[in-house]
Amino acid sequence: MKVYLAGPDVFLPDALAMAERKRAICAVHGLTGIFPVDNHPLHPEEAGIPFWLWIYRRNEAHMRDADAVIANLTPFRGPSADAGTVYEVGFMRALGKRVLGYSNAAAGFLPRTLGFLGAAAQRDAQGRWRDAAAMSVEDFGLADNLMIDGGIHEAGFTLVRHDVPEEARWSDLSAFEACVQALARSR
Amino acid sequence: MKVYLAGPDVFLPDALAMAERKRAICAVHGLTGIFPVDNHPLHPEEAGIPFWLWIYRRNEAHMRDADAVIANLTPFRGPSADAGTVYEVGFMRALGKRVLGYSNAAAGFLPRTLGFLGAAAQRDAQGRWRDAAAMSVEDFGLADNLMIDGGIHEAGFTLVRHDVPEEARWSDLSAFEACVQALARSR
Repeated sequence: MKVYLAGPDVFLPDALAMAERKRAICAVHGLTGIFPVDNHPLHPEEAGIPFWLWIYRRNEAHMRDADAVIANLTPFRGPSADAGTVYEVGFMRALGKRVLGYSNAAAGFLPRTLGFLGAAAQRDAQGRWRDAAAMSVEDFGLADNLMIDGGIHEAGFTLVRHDVPEEARWSDLSAFEACVQALARSR
Repeated sequence: MKVYLAGPDVFLPDALAMAERKRAICAVHGLTGIFPVDNHPLHPEEAGIPFWLWIYRRNEAHMRDADAVIANLTPFRGPSADAGTVYEVGFMRALGKRVLGYSNAAAGFLPRTLGFLGAAAQRDAQGRWRDAAAMSVEDFGLADNLMIDGGIHEAGFTLVRHDVPEEARWSDLSAFEACVQALARSR
């Protein structure tokens, strides 16, 4: 079973070392990990296209080849997960693949969003939290926007939330390994 | 042609009024707008499930019914678009539907992310911007993470960027109408 390893891990200075760590954990459980930056044979006509578009096409090709995705949904530069990773979770759900994900922040979406908004967050007359533009804040006890938790749930899995010290946020792989185990059990 | 109207517009206090404004613009161009909160006939067994899961299933059913998505990708509580909307863009791209989107902030992803990071952003020895965790910042001149711009591009469209005054960020529909026009022309 081939599993696409989605996440902002690609932005780490040692992204290739992280790829090998994740791939090794997959291998222990009999799975083949595909990291976004892995090589993929693209068509000859791809030559000369902008680099960002080449990356997009490579990632999409990797996802279509894979049987599953394990997404690193740890909050990234705001209350939600990395946008590229979220895109990929939706993409894989639509293809009917197995969809799993984890976050190295155990706090829910509501307290995280309120922490981000600070004094801009106020309760309205109905007690609902709203931001400075009066836009409401989701309050379902989930890890992130309900579409993310929902897609993983509908694929038959649970978003794994695991609190780690701030300095280990981008290196701790225990929640990742819990996803690998759940995926291996689902075969 | 049925078009799913994705965006954080659902969090507005007057979300239903926004739904009607967008639906009217679609109708002028011969398209049928579907707003996430519109009713959808779900199966009887949906009774008793948590409300967030009911919303998820309704939105997914709307997307499968639609021929296209026009996503409001205006930055939402951070440098990127609303996570639920981004999920839906990836979902619709994977289904091979027409994918369009707009942002009411013309500034690119790099300057927006640098503004968000503030003093935490530093150039590394290669001149690449990195955050406090040494994670790199995308620098492709795009509107958001390359997966979002890429998905719209691969569907044959362009992410429309339009700068509006801060107070009109969630009410100006000129960029939305440009998307409706592009979609109508694509029939």
